[in-house]
Amino acid sequence: MMAVQQIKMVKNILAGNDELAARNRQYFQSHGILAINVMASPGSGKTSLITRTIASLGQGARIGVIEGDIAGSIDTEKVLEAGAVDAVQINTGGNCHLEASMIQKALESFDLNSLDILFIENVGNLVCPTHWSLGEQIRICLLSTPEGHDKPVKYPEIFAASDAILLNKIDLIPWTDFNRDFFYESVRALNAQAPIFELSCRSGEGIEDWVVWLRKKQHHVERTQASSIPPTPAG
Amino acid sequence: MMAVQQIKMVKNILAGNDELAARNRQYFQSHGILAINVMASPGSGKTSLITRTIASLGQGARIGVIEGDIAGSIDTEKVLEAGAVDAVQINTGGNCHLEASMIQKALESFDLNSLDILFIENVGNLVCPTHWSLGEQIRICLLSTPEGHDKPVKYPEIFAASDAILLNKIDLIPWTDFNRDFFYESVRALNAQAPIFELSCRSGEGIEDWVVWLRKKQHHVERTQASSIPPTPAG
Repeated sequence: MMAVQQIKMVKNILAGNDELAARNRQYFQSHGILAINVMASPGSGKTSLITRTIASLGQGARIGVIEGDIAGSIDTEKVLEAGAVDAVQINTGGNCHLEASMIQKALESFDLNSLDILFIENVGNLVCPTHWSLGEQIRICLLSTPEGHDKPVKYPEIFAASDAILLNKIDLIPWTDFNRDFFYESVRALNAQAPIFELSCRSGEGIEDWVVWLRKKQHHVERTQASSIPPTPAG
Repeated sequence: MMAVQQIKMVKNILAGNDELAARNRQYFQSHGILAINVMASPGSGKTSLITRTIASLGQGARIGVIEGDIAGSIDTEKVLEAGAVDAVQINTGGNCHLEASMIQKALESFDLNSLDILFIENVGNLVCPTHWSLGEQIRICLLSTPEGHDKPVKYPEIFAASDAILLNKIDLIPWTDFNRDFFYESVRALNAQAPIFELSCRSGEGIEDWVVWLRKKQHHVERTQASSIPPTPAG
């Protein structure tokens, strides 16, 4: 009885989340904003990817950031220093992932007409964020080489659900046992389509290819921007 | 209404887990087994710590392992190769943490009279495992240096709740921006008591200090072994 009730409730909660996510997506789309859900383990380099991307885009795009963390505001300070137009910190307390309702609330703090790209840095976690749509048009998954080439086998869902996969900290490969062939084979078994970008957010190597891809996605959103009156986030 | 119902249910589920965890703990204690809940991000080196510890203990202790992963059985194969007496793989499907009921079920596969130490490798996750007791006597948290010195600030609960904190991959510090002072200060603000072991599971550096501490804990369990008739795990 308990179990059945629990499953029903989880379904209700996820369905409610999907409704809010659809509203967020419409909101992004109507403002011509590309929203990117950045998912990875703790310490894979999500914030470094965002600051490197801001630097690489320069005046080419106006970036907003939503930072999701259990606690702290270190990353929000970092992305603002790096040149983000605006950034909002969400502290989830004990919650292991962001949800669409949190994004909806955070969007109230932004002037969306002043943004081209919105990075949403999820809580560091290779499992839970996969189940919660935030309304993003693109989901990316970062893996850092010291985490090991076997992560796609152990955490398949997140690699299967991502629109691009970024292999970070390639500068550390010489000092690890990372096996590129194993990594590529296991990712390709899960996700035949997503581009894989190898990069080092520390040295900057490989950032350009990622940014070229990102700009294409952003231009696509601009071209398909809905002409309808944007809904209010709370509406 | 929904929210209240949800909170009540979560409390019920956690209370149910705690009951099963208490039973597991009694079961470990009555068999003189030290059970260790190993928690960390994906790719921090949990399995490498276990295989290194098995090698270092040699004939000194008989080790069993429960491996928790979303999918795959790579780690179970590794620990058996390394000399574990027995190992059981739990594939959680989408579940982001182990629960006491999973451990209870897994224990049916072990001959507990043949074990001194049981490692329980949790799903790679710095958040969710903290909330679910498995009945372990000791919880440890690994952090690998490439994940960054700021992790205790961002994921405080797991560092506060651990009986020992292991800083792994210290051989990679020269190629990262890891700040030891920041790490120690932030850990100590959360947890004044837990020993912090610096080590490299790759090179073996620092393993001995950790193993000495572990053996002390194991001997304590042996000395305090309950004389009562052990309950059956299903009883």
